[in-house]
This record gives sequence, C-alpha cells and structure tokens, in this order.
Amino acid sequence: YLYPNVLHQLYWGYRESFLCIHLNFNSFVTRTNTCGELRSAHVGQEVTLYGWIQYQRQGLFLVLRDFQGLTQIIIPQDEAHSHVKKLLSNAPVESVVRVTGTVSLRPPGQENPKMPTGDIEVKVETAEILNSCKKLPFEIKDFIKKTEALRMQYRYLDLRSFQLQYNLRLRSQIVMRMREYLCNLHGFVDVETPTLFKRTPGGAKEFLVPSREAGKFYSLPQSPQQFKQLLMVGGLDRYFQVARCYRDEGSRPDRQPEFTQIDIEMSFVDQAGIQRLIEGLLQYSWPEERGSITTPFPSMTYEESLADYGTDKPDTRFGMKIVDISDFLRRSDIRFVQNALSYPRGTVKAICIPQGMVSDAFTYCLYNFPDSEIAPSHSPPSLLQCSALGSLRLESADLLEAAGLVLRDPTVFHFLWVVDFPLFLPNEENPTELESAHHPFTAPHPSDTSLLYSDPTKVRSQHYDLVLNGNEVGGGSIRIHSAEQQRFVLEKVLKEDSEVLSHLLEALEFGAPPHGGIALGLDRLISLIVDAPSIRDVIAFPKSFKGRDLMGNAPDYVTPEELEPYHIQVSWPLAEKEAKNP
Amino acid sequence: YLYPNVLHQLYWGYRESFLCIHLNFNSFVTRTNTCGELRSAHVGQEVTLYGWIQYQRQGLFLVLRDFQGLTQIIIPQDEAHSHVKKLLSNAPVESVVRVTGTVSLRPPGQENPKMPTGDIEVKVETAEILNSCKKLPFEIKDFIKKTEALRMQYRYLDLRSFQLQYNLRLRSQIVMRMREYLCNLHGFVDVETPTLFKRTPGGAKEFLVPSREAGKFYSLPQSPQQFKQLLMVGGLDRYFQVARCYRDEGSRPDRQPEFTQIDIEMSFVDQAGIQRLIEGLLQYSWPEERGSITTPFPSMTYEESLADYGTDKPDTRFGMKIVDISDFLRRSDIRFVQNALSYPRGTVKAICIPQGMVSDAFTYCLYNFPDSEIAPSHSPPSLLQCSALGSLRLESADLLEAAGLVLRDPTVFHFLWVVDFPLFLPNEENPTELESAHHPFTAPHPSDTSLLYSDPTKVRSQHYDLVLNGNEVGGGSIRIHSAEQQRFVLEKVLKEDSEVLSHLLEALEFGAPPHGGIALGLDRLISLIVDAPSIRDVIAFPKSFKGRDLMGNAPDYVTPEELEPYHIQVSWPLAEKEAKNP
Repeated sequence: YLYPNVLHQLYWGYRESFLCIHLNFNSFVTRTNTCGELRSAHVGQEVTLYGWIQYQRQGLFLVLRDFQGLTQIIIPQDEAHSHVKKLLSNAPVESVVRVTGTVSLRPPGQENPKMPTGDIEVKVETAEILNSCKKLPFEIKDFIKKTEALRMQYRYLDLRSFQLQYNLRLRSQIVMRMREYLCNLHGFVDVETPTLFKRTPGGAKEFLVPSREAGKFYSLPQSPQQFKQLLMVGGLDRYFQVARCYRDEGSRPDRQPEFTQIDIEMSFVDQAGIQRLIEGLLQYSWPEERGSITTPFPSMTYEESLADYGTDKPDTRFGMKIVDISDFLRRSDIRFVQNALSYPRGTVKAICIPQGMVSDAFTYCLYNFPDSEIAPSHSPPSLLQCSALGSLRLESADLLEAAGLVLRDPTVFHFLWVVDFPLFLPNEENPTELESAHHPFTAPHPSDTSLLYSDPTKVRSQHYDLVLNGNEVGGGSIRIHSAEQQRFVLEKVLKEDSEVLSHLLEALEFGAPPHGGIALGLDRLISLIVDAPSIRDVIAFPKSFKGRDLMGNAPDYVTPEELEPYHIQVSWPLAEKEAKNP
Repeated sequence: YLYPNVLHQLYWGYRESFLCIHLNFNSFVTRTNTCGELRSAHVGQEVTLYGWIQYQRQGLFLVLRDFQGLTQIIIPQDEAHSHVKKLLSNAPVESVVRVTGTVSLRPPGQENPKMPTGDIEVKVETAEILNSCKKLPFEIKDFIKKTEALRMQYRYLDLRSFQLQYNLRLRSQIVMRMREYLCNLHGFVDVETPTLFKRTPGGAKEFLVPSREAGKFYSLPQSPQQFKQLLMVGGLDRYFQVARCYRDEGSRPDRQPEFTQIDIEMSFVDQAGIQRLIEGLLQYSWPEERGSITTPFPSMTYEESLADYGTDKPDTRFGMKIVDISDFLRRSDIRFVQNALSYPRGTVKAICIPQGMVSDAFTYCLYNFPDSEIAPSHSPPSLLQCSALGSLRLESADLLEAAGLVLRDPTVFHFLWVVDFPLFLPNEENPTELESAHHPFTAPHPSDTSLLYSDPTKVRSQHYDLVLNGNEVGGGSIRIHSAEQQRFVLEKVLKEDSEVLSHLLEALEFGAPPHGGIALGLDRLISLIVDAPSIRDVIAFPKSFKGRDLMGNAPDYVTPEELEPYHIQVSWPLAEKEAKNP
C-alpha cells in the first residue's frame, strides 16, 4: 500500500502538465490540503487533513492516506492532548479521520526522500474519528496477493490501492483529453444514442430486455453502429460518443458483458482522413509518462500481415517474421518436405528464432497445407500455414522471454494500421455461403467495386483495424452510402432478410452523405497504456469472467410477480425442474 | 428550414467565445469550408463545399446547406459547363453534392443581410452528385408542422432541421464545459459504473435483463447511487459521470425509458459544499446567449415552499404567493367560511390574482382542510390546502398568459434550492408504515438525528432539490455513512429486508468517509435552457411516450430460439392466447 513513488510523481506531473489551469482538490470542503500536497514550503501553516489511517505506531505517530498521497502525523504526548492521543492510538487501521495541526520539518536525518511529503510532518492539535474500520478481510497492501474473487467481492477496498486509483484517474484524464481534441479542436458533437433498441440481424450476442408489450423485447446493442450512420444522414457531420456497449458471450476470459468504446463517425471522409484523425487523437491524449508516439502509424495490408506474421493483429515490436524457405529446401532430401513441395503451389515456410530453440520450431514449421486439400478458395494456401506459424511465433516469444530475453517491451508502443481486409468470408458452418468479414455496412474497396457484382469473394473492403502491440484496439470502415449497393449486399450477397434494416435502407435513399468512422476499444487501450494484466484493472466495478458481480451478487433471482408486467416466465432447465419436483 | 439567423449567429458566437483555441471543422476532409463560413474576405478564393441542396431555381442558382449554414451557389450557364448545369438542375432537393468554385461578391443590391454568408456567392466550376434524394415524406422546413409520429419515424430527416442541430450541439457544448469544470478545475474523476446490476429494494421501475443462468436477471439501475457511494468508500474522493439511467414507468408523457444525469459524489463534504459546487458548475457551463445566472441560488425550506407556493418545486418567476386570510375573514359573515375557521387550527388561504379573474379564484381558495379530517399527522393541515392553491396558481398563470400577460418569461432563469425535506413519509397504501421521502441512503438533518430513534416522522433530511422555473432539475443529499444508522433506517424504520443491501452495509463498516452528492437531470435541464416543449427535442433518438422507437420499430418480437439461452418464455396474455388458438 506504500505508493510506488516514481509512478506517483510521474502521474501528478503528467496531470499538471496536462492542464494549464489551476486544479483545486480542496474546493467545497473544509480540508486545507490533501495528504500528498504538503512540502517544506508549508512549514508553520495550520492545516486540516482528512484521510485513512495507513499505519499507526505505539501512539507516537501515524501515516494518513488519501487519493493523492501519504502524510506523517505526529501524535501529541502531553497531558493537554491526552484525549487526542487516546483517540488516534485506538483507531483501527483504515479508519477515517480528520486531523488539524501544524506543519513542521522532520527532525534532521528523519526525512524520507522517497516520499513526496517526506520532508515534513504534521503535529496534531485536534482530531476526530469520522468512521471506524472493522477487521479487514485482507491486508490491502499492493504487494500482498489476494485471490481475484476476494478482491472482486470487496472491490471498494481494492479501489483504495494505489494501482487502481492510478488506473482509474489516468483513464479519466485520457478520455478528457480525447474529448478536448474531438470537441474543442475538431468540431465533433458528443451525441448520446439509445441502448434500448432492437435486435440486429445476426445479433446473437445481444442481451434482451423484455418490454411491457407481450412478446416484444428491446435489445442492448453491441455498438451504436446504426445510430451513428443515421446521425450522418441527419447532417450531424462529425459525431463522437464514449459509448457503453453490450455483448453477451457467456463466459470468456478478459471480456466484459458491458464495455466502452470511443465511437466516431464523420461525413465526407475517406480512409486516410479517419486514420489521421485517430493518430492525432492518440498523440494528443497520450500520457507523457508513457513516452511519445510517432505519427503517422505504419500501415500493412491484411495479406501482408498474414504472410509476414500469421495474424491480422501482428505484434511488430519484434521480428521473427515468417519466411518462405521452399527454394532452400528444394535441394534437401527430406522426404516429407519434398512431398509437400510437390503439390501445386506447395510451399514450406518458417520463422527464424534467435538464440537456440531451433529444433522445436523447425519441426513445427515444416508442416504445410497444400491448396487443394484444406485452404478455402478465397485465401492463398500459405495463409493457413502462416496462421500456425504466427501462433508459434508468439509461443516462441513467451519461451524466449521466460528465458530472460526482452522481446516485447511493455513501455514501447507499436501502433499499426491493418487495411484491405476481404469484404466477405465463407460462412464457417456452410462455406458456400458468404458472411461479412466485419459488418454488412462496410463499403467495398473503390478498386474492387465492380467485382462486388461478379465475384464478391475477391472484393477487398474499406475496413481498417488499429493494432497496438499485437492487440486489436480499434476498427472501422468507410460505409456504404448507396441504398442500392447496401440492398445488393444484404439481399444478394449475404442472403439476409433486409426487412429488419428497412429504416437504414430507407435513410440511405434520402440524401445520405458518404461517411465513415471507427471505434476504439477503450478498456483494452487503457489496459495496454498502464500495462495492466486484464481489462478488469481499468474498470471500477468489473464482472467476473462468468459475467457476475461478486460484490453485489448480480445477476440474481426475481419473483414471478416481478416478471408479470413483462409477460415472461422462467423455463427452468430440466435438471433443476426435476430437482424441484422429484 | 431557413436558419433563424439571430439564433444561428448567437450560437456560433457562443461556441467561439467558449473556446480560446482554433476550432477546425474542415480537418481530415477535402472541403475547404463549411456552408456557413464564407464572407467577403474570401472573395477570389477557390473553395470546395459539401452539402445538401436546400433549394434550386430554374437551373440558375441553388442554396447549399450543411450543419453550419447556407451558401448561395451560382450555376454556370455557358456551354463549357453544360454538364455541371445539367447535373445540378436535375438533382432533387436534399440531394448531397460537392461543388468546387470561386467565391464572388453578390451583385450590388442582391446582398442578403439576414444571412451570415449573404454578401457572397460561389460560382461553380465542377460539381458532383454524391447521393440523390428520393421524394421526401414531408417538407423539412422548420415552420411546416408535421405529426410527432412522422417526425419520429423519419428522425434522421428531422435531425437536419436547424432547431434539432442547435439543440444537440448546444447540449454537447454544455456537457463539455461541465466536464472541464469538474475534471480540469476541481479534480473530479470520471468513472463509468455498471448498468447491468441487480434489482434494488423497491426497484419496481427497473428493467430486467435475463442472464444465461436460469432464473437470474440483471437489472438496469435507475441511477448509479450504490456505485457512487461505494466509490467514496473506495477513496475516489470526487466522482462524476454523465450517466445513462433507466426507468420503466410504462407510458408517461415526456418521460423516457432511458435518460441521462450528471451524477456527482464527493467525500468530506456538507450540503453547502455541494450547493456551491453546482452553482459554480452551472455558471461555468451556462451558454452566454441565455444571459448570465447569479449565484448563490436562493434557498427555501420544504415547509416554506409548500406554504408559499403549494409545491416543492415552485416557479419563483412570478408572485401570486399563497396568503393566510383567516384573520381578514373572521369578520365576514359567510357561513361556510366561519364554519371552516371554527375547526381547531382551521385556516382559510388564498392567492391574489392580478387583473381580474378574482371570482373563480375566490371560490376555489375558500376550500379548506381541517386538521382532524384529512391531513396526515406529519404535515400541517395547511400544506394540503396549499397544494390545491399551488395548482390553482399555475392554472391561473396559464389563463393570464393566454390572455396576453407574460408571467413566466422563458428567457429568465430562476434557480432555487429547496431544503429540509422530511426524511420519511407515510406509505400511501398503508399510512401507518413509513417510506423514504427520497431514498434510504439519505442522512438525517444533524439537528434531528436523535429524533430518528424516537419520532422518525419528525426528522428532516439532508436532501436538497434544485428547482429551475418550477421544474425539478436536480436532487441530492448527504448520505448516511454509519453502518449502524443505515441498518437502523432500513430494518427498524422502513422494515425492509437489508439482505439485498448487505454489500453496501458491509462497505460502510470498512472506513466509509462522510460523503454526499447530487444528480442533475440533463435532458430536462437542456430542454429548459433551449426552451424546448419536450425533452424529446434535446435527445437524438427519443422513444415515443409508449416507449417505442418509431424509426427502428423497437421493441420487437423475437423467436423462441432466441429466448432459449436465457431460460425464459413469453407468457401470452389470455386475450392474445385465445386469438391465436381459437
């Protein structure tokens, strides 16, 4: 619980350099200072502090903590202050107190250079216990390991840790800077869009909300996609929203049923316009303490990315790219290699792993996928082979790092645009059918528009992904703005019932401007910036990986009477039904 | 659809005075200017504009519109430009076009001083139709009345109107200024809290969200109340959020199932601290064009408010206060007046209505409520009498205004704090039971704490309401931070099962700081600032009063298969069941 001093100072330095204006943490309250504020310049001043007892020793002194830091408090030992001494000596750790006293220099030799307030101490005159703390379920020091479940159950205690305070405050600051950039510099309008909407086609991951109309349900949308496009049709020109989104994926590690995206849409823009906007946005809001980032970000096509890294979200902080060693191996006499190369378009690819471990890797990389047998027609056979090598590349990096090498420095930030995705992919269950690689509103690449009507599998899209250190942190596209083209994609290519999207199709007929946009995954982005192991560390009240709130115990049972207005009833699974009525 | 010029200029002046920085609407796109930007200083420049055709006349000129204004475009008549002429002459109104051309002064005498761009016109060189517009369902001019349902169905067209553009943009700006005040000036942290939570006690108005665990439901909270208090326990010190909230009230005029509040909580603060914070917040974010507001706001007790205005949200823009005329009437010989006054504590009250209409009012005001018969014991008998007079006061104002008097000038803003509410009220259905006047977390007034245990009906609370021109625009309180007191209120006074709030009660035991907060109803506040008749006019995609989205048709039916993962089924009301299976 002792504040990691360097981070702490960096943070406040960062915060002050952000704001050219005076930031006042003591307005509207009776404290004179926070617990992180006092310096030798304050010596002699009478101050009033409010905070939590971090530590107390033998009735002599205590350390008081608030969100900003720690201050050493000297407990008076004279008879006249016996009441104050008794009060402070008996208060349990983590009790909340007010102390009023005088700032003094610490005696020579007792200064603590590791503490921003380490030059001073406060000699108490009066004190008040505002709330006592009962025995804690765990010691809330950063270095003490607790189970995740216990931390989640007592989230309000975990929030007192330096790390979570830091993460949430930095998140708030970064978002504020993003807003300044969008709203104050570039004329974007912050528009709130509904979260009670209706099911979108293929929206199998959308939560339902029963309405009072029998059989009718709202749906919590996975993104404001339709609304932001309709805002462009409505002439809003530049929209953004820090949007709450919902996705019901059941249990998945490090996903949350509700999450936040920086949602952006612009009219009359092209792919490059959105990319420059986002680069400027990230540069403007980037915390100083995390170094600076260079723009423009490099760009790579989907095909290059798969060929070189075996994934569409490559971690470009390190090399070990995939190379074609077919020519080299043609001269070898290894039987199964020769066999692989004898297929039409047969190749052998590999990654070169530095510093040993070659044998494992070599075995793996010789695996190959001749075109005719496995690869679906739309992707070159080498892509699948590359995908396996891409996983091997990351696994190898894990092993090398476990052995002490630094391949992926978390303080280095490699942003990358991945572009020219295919517009459609074969449906996994039924490969003769096509589905949208991203969503049905994505516009085809201008060079491939005519292919849309002749060979849609070959059409590249105007979708772009933003990748940071091997993580997808954003994605967007130029949208279809022609009603005719949108109807063709929905009905002819995707064979979907366009009726549920009739309002959007109709809107495109009423003078919809060309438009495009992007959404950044805020939780993931912030977690990478603060180098947190999970997005749960940058969310105040996250759900468990099973979607439960372990503090408040949600979701929970409700009575049949509470369901009545919504005309629904629980259909108990057979097992539970039988357990109830044996 | 012609922009009301004065408002328009005010708006952009306001926006520029807000921001000491350069605001660029033309970044990241290929337009050189917006349609509201060109002045005589631009004459001779080649410009590229994008916009909607507002009006086109005989192939000679057209008016191009975007979010910022209108520009007159001169269509070339020479042979070399015959293609451009054909294109622009044939494009239907509301089609989206790009035009490139040269800014020229309008011929002498043809300037339009009512238009910000009225000194110039643009002579087109090249043009492109980006999207054509089919026949509109209604003419989208501000002065043409459409049915509310039609406007909602084609919301994206209605959004193109000046008024909605103005409302949404002003809303975005005001919220941005609020964020600057809270975040950059006063150290508040913007924290997002979950919307998938669990049902709160008495939360009959909460939407349910079925989970994948059979029988278990999330609930969409009516406010982040519990979370913001837990953030204070977590040491966040100063929290705010522009929070989406949910309330299922069925059909009620001018309510929305989802709405937004400016949600604030602070530690170590008292009632006056929160009030000064909010006054500063509103003053800082107040749009210049709406005049200035004076702080501190006046304050009135609940009792005074009811006695003088017959309501707890008095419109103090005009007088006609309630007066006690008992003494005056004691000398009268009107039989039923004498009868009323003969009761113990019997009074006669009245309002004085200026300029005629006295007779109606007089009849009404003589009505009275002797203590013993009607008034519940906790409120003085005169309060009920006052409530009737309060309604009469507003009805009279309606009538007087219909007759031409201005009593309630919408450009005048009277903020008012109403304080010292009762902490508990008798349950309407069972008056011997008590319920919270606001919510169970409200702290008792410091002077009344001991009454909590002896006579809870007499306890005033530390709740405060913010009233603007007769509308409640905010409410908050200092909260209970003692676990013992909170448990007493829940279990002994309210007789509620405290188990569902066990996490909050437990949190109060672990060093919860004294804290308090407030929530401002953003939709209502903005609608009053822009003088909109309904909150629907300041929300981009509002629901109808029946909770329906008329554009996208939500809520909607879903298939039984879609309900399966949530272990629910529809229990069709009898009537519909019979209709289906006759």
